Formats: sequence, C-alpha cells, structure tokens
Amino acid sequence: MNVVDIITKKRNGLTMTRSEIDYMVKGISEGTIPDYQIAAWAMAVYFQGMDIEETRDLTLAMAYSGEVMDLAPIQGFKVDKHSTGGVGDKTTLIAIALAAAAGIPVAKMSGRGLGHTGGTVDKFESIPGFRVELSRREFIEQVNTIKAALISQSGNLVPADKRLYAIRDVTATVESIPLIASSIISKKIAAGAQGIVLDVKVGRGAFMKDLDTATQLARTMVEIGKGAGREVVAVLTDMNQPLGYNVGNALEVAEALDLLRGQGAEDLKEVSLILTAHMLVLAGKHTDFQAAREELQQLLATGQAFQKFTEIVAAQGGRLDFSLPFYDLPQASHKEELIAREEGYVVDLDALKVGHAAMLLGAGREQLDDHIDPSVGVQLVKKYGDFVKKGDVLAVMHVNDINRLALARQQLQEAFTVGPAQPVTIPLVYKTVLSQNT
Amino acid sequence: MNVVDIITKKRNGLTMTRSEIDYMVKGISEGTIPDYQIAAWAMAVYFQGMDIEETRDLTLAMAYSGEVMDLAPIQGFKVDKHSTGGVGDKTTLIAIALAAAAGIPVAKMSGRGLGHTGGTVDKFESIPGFRVELSRREFIEQVNTIKAALISQSGNLVPADKRLYAIRDVTATVESIPLIASSIISKKIAAGAQGIVLDVKVGRGAFMKDLDTATQLARTMVEIGKGAGREVVAVLTDMNQPLGYNVGNALEVAEALDLLRGQGAEDLKEVSLILTAHMLVLAGKHTDFQAAREELQQLLATGQAFQKFTEIVAAQGGRLDFSLPFYDLPQASHKEELIAREEGYVVDLDALKVGHAAMLLGAGREQLDDHIDPSVGVQLVKKYGDFVKKGDVLAVMHVNDINRLALARQQLQEAFTVGPAQPVTIPLVYKTVLSQNT
Repeated sequence: MNVVDIITKKRNGLTMTRSEIDYMVKGISEGTIPDYQIAAWAMAVYFQGMDIEETRDLTLAMAYSGEVMDLAPIQGFKVDKHSTGGVGDKTTLIAIALAAAAGIPVAKMSGRGLGHTGGTVDKFESIPGFRVELSRREFIEQVNTIKAALISQSGNLVPADKRLYAIRDVTATVESIPLIASSIISKKIAAGAQGIVLDVKVGRGAFMKDLDTATQLARTMVEIGKGAGREVVAVLTDMNQPLGYNVGNALEVAEALDLLRGQGAEDLKEVSLILTAHMLVLAGKHTDFQAAREELQQLLATGQAFQKFTEIVAAQGGRLDFSLPFYDLPQASHKEELIAREEGYVVDLDALKVGHAAMLLGAGREQLDDHIDPSVGVQLVKKYGDFVKKGDVLAVMHVNDINRLALARQQLQEAFTVGPAQPVTIPLVYKTVLSQNT
Repeated sequence: MNVVDIITKKRNGLTMTRSEIDYMVKGISEGTIPDYQIAAWAMAVYFQGMDIEETRDLTLAMAYSGEVMDLAPIQGFKVDKHSTGGVGDKTTLIAIALAAAAGIPVAKMSGRGLGHTGGTVDKFESIPGFRVELSRREFIEQVNTIKAALISQSGNLVPADKRLYAIRDVTATVESIPLIASSIISKKIAAGAQGIVLDVKVGRGAFMKDLDTATQLARTMVEIGKGAGREVVAVLTDMNQPLGYNVGNALEVAEALDLLRGQGAEDLKEVSLILTAHMLVLAGKHTDFQAAREELQQLLATGQAFQKFTEIVAAQGGRLDFSLPFYDLPQASHKEELIAREEGYVVDLDALKVGHAAMLLGAGREQLDDHIDPSVGVQLVKKYGDFVKKGDVLAVMHVNDINRLALARQQLQEAFTVGPAQPVTIPLVYKTVLSQNT
C-alpha cells in the first residue's frame, strides 16, 4: 500500500477501503507517514468528504490506535455525554450528578478547555482539593460505589486523533464533518462508552455556526456510532448566547450547585434535563423519554442530585462549604460592572464575545499550555430578550489582573446590543437526531 | 500575515494577493513555512485553481526566489526552448544547432531526465568528453562566439520550485495546471529567457494525456509568460508514440546527428523545424513563420546546422568521429531483437511503455540519484501505421546488463499492437497557442 495512491484516490473522490484507512491511521499514530502527506490527505478529505462507512472505519481505527478504557468491571450500561463546546456550558456537571442519582453509572473522562470554550476538567479543578487524576482502580471503584467519577483524559488515548488534529489545526482542515465526527466519536469509544448523548451546539459561540452543518454533523455522528455498535443520540442546542449566567470555572461550578439546589437559570436546567433524560433512556432505565425526565425533575426537587454532587466532590478530595457564600470556591479580588448605556431590550448577546471576554480575564486558554485562573470570569445579569434601563448592570466581570480588564470589557461591551423592540425568542433546542433504526 | 489564513483563503476559492503569494514563496524557499502547510496549500490549489494573475505572481516570485541568470552580456534576443517531456524527444539537440546556425543566440540550461522521459543534459553527456559544467564566463563567451552553449541547470536556481515540487511529488498535488505552469515558466525566467518556445507533449507518453488539459496548460503558460513580459509560443505535439526511432541517450544523439546530416525520421524533422522556426520568429529574425522554416530547411540541406552541432560539441570538449559507425558514441554490448509474431499493421505503439522499457534497460532514472547507462536503449524499426510481416524486426534493444532484459522485453512487447486494418493517421502537431496580442 502506498500513501500517495491513497491521497490520489481520495483527491479523485473515490472511496477508501477499510484496509486503506487502517493503513493511514496506523501511519499517523506510529509516525511512519510524514506530516505533509497527512496534511494533503486531510485537505483532500475536506474537499471530497467521506461516506458513512469510511467515517466509521476511520473512527474505529482511531479509537483503537492507542489505549482503550476497559469499563467492563463497572456494572451497568455505560453512557457518556459530550458537548461540542459552548460558552457557559456547565451541563456536564449537572448531568453527572443527575444520572448518578438515577443509578446510571457515569465513568467520565473529560478534557480541558481551549479558546473561548471551557473544559469540564478545568471546572472541577476549580474546586479546592479536587483530584482529576485517579488510578484506573480508584476510578472504577468510585463508579461502582457512588455511580460517578471524573478523570482527566489520558495522554495515551487516541494518539492518531491527537496527531491528526494537531496537523488539521495548522492546515485549515479542521472544518470537515467526517474528520470532526470521527475525532469526537473515536474518543468516546476509546473512553469505553456504550451509549453516547451528544450536545451539538449551534450558533455564534459554537463551532457549528449554522443549523444545516450542525445537523449534518449530528447525523454523521449518530450513524457512525451506530455502525460501530454504539447507541448515540444527538441534541442540537442553541449557542448564540451563553448557557446560564456564569462563564468562568468556579463561577460555573457555583451556578451548577445553585441549580442542583433548586435555584438556577431555566435554559441551563432545561438542557441539562433533556440531555440526562436521553442518557437514562439509552441506559435502559426508561423506555419513555418523558418518564425519564420526570424522574430527573424529582431527583432535582428532592435534593438527591445535589447530594450526589457533594458525594462525588468529597470522594475526589474536593472541599466545598455550603454555609459560606459562593460555597468557599475561589473568588476574584475585583468585581467590575458593565452598565447599560441606554434603555431597551437585549436584542443580541454574542456568546463568542462573552467567551472571549472570559478568556481574556484568564478563565480560558489561548494556547494549550496557558495557565488558567479558576476564580475569574463573567457573570451575566441580563440575557437575550431582557428589558434594561439605562444604568442597569448588564454583567459583572470577576477580575484578578487589572491589566486584563480593558480588552475584556471591550469584548463584553460588544457582546451586548440593546434595541427598542423586544426580539423574537430563539429556540433552546433545535432538534434531536436519533439513529434511524432506534 | 498568517499561513493558515492564506491556506483557508485558497481553500475557500478566493484569490490570493501578490503579497500573500510573495509571503508564501518566501516561506517555501527560506524554509520558514513547514512542509505540511505547503502540502495543504498545494492541495487547496489543486481543487480551487489559480487565475492568470495569481499564477503569474507565483511564477515571478519563484523565478526570483534564488539565483537568476544574467544573460545581458550575450548579444541578441535570448530564446529558450522547453519540452514538457517525451519519449525519444531529441528535438532540443537539433533546435540548438539549427537556431545557432541561423544566428540566434542559444544559452541553454537543461535538466536531467526522470522516469520514462529523457533529459537533454543526459543526452549530451553520452558524447565522450562533453562538459555540461561551464563557468558563467565560459558559457557566455561560447554563446557570443559560436551562438550556442549548453549547461546543466544550476542548483541555486528557483529553490522555491525545487522544494514545492518535492512536496507535490509525494502529496498527489503534481497534476495542477497553475502549479505545473509556474514551475516550468519560473525556471525559464530564472535561466534568463526573453522568449520561450514550448513543446507541450500530448498523449500516453506525455505528462498531459488529453488535448483539453494540454491546451489549458499551454494557454496558461503563454499568458503568464506574457504577464511576466516574456514572449511565449506553445506548440502541442503528439506523444502517443515516441518521436523518431531511437530512445536512449547515445542512440538519440546518433539519431539527431543523422537528421542533421540529412537522413532521419520525418516526424522528428517536422517537429524540430516547427519549434525552431518559432524561435526565429520570436527572436525577430523573421516576421513570417514560413520564411523562418525555409531558412532552417536550407541550413539543414547545406549541412550548416550539422556543422554548428560539431562546433558546439568541440567547444565543450566532446569527441565524435564521423568516419566511424555510430560516430564513436558508446555502444551496448548486446543487441536483442523484438520480432513480430503476426502479420498486420502497427495499430498501437505506446510511448509510455517504450520509455519504460528504455528506463528498465538503464537509459533512465527511477530515482533522482540513479546512475544511467548512456549506451543502452530501444531502437524502433517499425512505427505506428507500418505494415509488418510475421518474423519482421519491430525493434532492437541495446543492452549491457542481461538481467534487465526480461522486464524490458515485456514492456516493449506490450508497447506494440499489431492488427489487421491500417489505422487512421494521428496528427503530429495538434495546435499552436500564441499570446492573444501577438
């Protein structure tokens, strides 16, 4: 087999065989195929695409290119939840607690954030003492004991995707549906998932800017998951404005805790319930989505989900104090308000700009090796559609390094548009994509 | 300026500005842009193409990426001749002698052959003693004295093209009209040409397999040449069967000498006359193509072109003996005939397979650093359209290493197809492409 022939074949719009894909992925993970051939191949895939079988083969080859988590010692059907990345998206924190409270095992392996979107590991790490590095044995025991555990993604998982993504990132070949889909699903398969609930974010603050592309991505992921023997559901949710009110690591943990205690943003609650209800259905806890949702509402209302969250935190060494303000989470030294300059409705709240503002304050990473500050971020006071008077507080910036304020303030200022007329409502959930045979 | 942005722009089908192209070419020649970004960009160009202005800018940026020959000390208008590569194509040897005999200065810089096509430098080097490495001063003095000199292409010419081509060769991005056109023309510009006559070969033994693609390449080269202030003519000639009868370095020199002495293949003579007549017109020696052609026929008939060839050979240290058979050129130790197995017409003679057979005998290089044997090759006895009887000799293989014979014989056998009906005539010249304003 010859790499130039494989690139030529894809370039000419032909379908790659499974053995060609295996050869390519092996060469990527083992380093025998040079970067430039991978780059040319990725660009050919960008233009010519891949059909579902090719994408599934690519996904499986990448999934098994390195270490694969064996979750067999965990009792029950293992469902994972994945978000394509949003601003203020702390649903994973809530979903873990809800699903575990419902008795579904959640063996969660998460990544860190990059750019304007946050990462679940970063959020948990903002809890003082919380350990995201557990041994395999600790991890499995904790899931078997309290139904949930969260660890940082292993460095040996999907090495082929790691190298391929690094090349795509610098060769303008990120925006390819089959490459995105295989990257996401291969990691979930390698992490041991039997079922996967995908939150595909759509809108300015998301990677997918429009509904058509997002739908295509969702369908591809559901189909390749099915082709790989995994049950997959994808929910397309809005990411034009941030989800909930808080953006920044400790700020988001606090908001998740608030919600688990019964006070919280409706949009965040709704998305969390929907995603977790799908997890329950995939795990076979319910056949009916509504029944699953009702059980979850009960677990929220009775405080059982909150209780579960505190168990997880305690099990992994995290220290929270529920008698103290902000649960004793790290807080920034300064709070800076963004004030409305005119009266009207918030007719636009740009998630991307809010995410950038939070990143500029130190809540996110521009480069993979940047350090983040867990206490900083943006707390929205007004959201899309809200009425504001001149002088009202639109948002509060939580700041430690005052030098970072000016740029962040400018981004946040630009994120808000106030206009005279009440804007139309934007849907929170656009659609749900299920496998056609399920 | 950012490379990823430039790749993205081309990927999205937008036009690159001159400064973006300059930035890219500088990064290619100076090594600041890594291979994988060049590969992704080349693949994006493969799919999205480049318009004439972009291609011209790329050509000029590459031409001036390294050393540029200053031919100003040579009197007269400097016309170069270039072939896109064929089998048995020794027209350059004849054109140099003809043009110089007509008083046109030919300061020829040539390359070596690769794959099934030969290189002019290799052919001249099969003449014992012939030196293709001249100092700049020797080179220019020789052209001023006897109107012609030939040297091997300098290693410092068009470094950007050298690196880009090496990457294209292993990333399935060779077959791109703007990249091919800019590669050819940039080298001619760097070699100091004011006028360029292009022989664009079309057919199985050529790089361009079909007339449409060849026409597109020819038009592109003529237009970018014009845009760069060079006068360019492209002649599209057939390369379905080899040109002339001999394929192999010394064999081709002998055939060129035969032709210059008045005995030779009609197809070779015709193509040589046409290409050189265009050189004379571009140089301003004639305004009328027919008049130029008639002068060249005279120079052939009177032996002046032959005389010029012997002068060039002598000036560069070559030793030929015109009283000896084969001009005392190196000869192979064995001659092996290919015999016709049936009676009929040669309805097919595949140039690519003949070229491969000669390469397998040692006349060409599979890899850039392969050594070649000047004496070996294939001497055709019958060509397309000829009638043959069973037992007739179709071709003679000139062999030194008997181990190479079996594979070469198989290729040569496959090159010939004999059938019952006389085949239709294939044109020798398909078309001539001139700049629209000339």
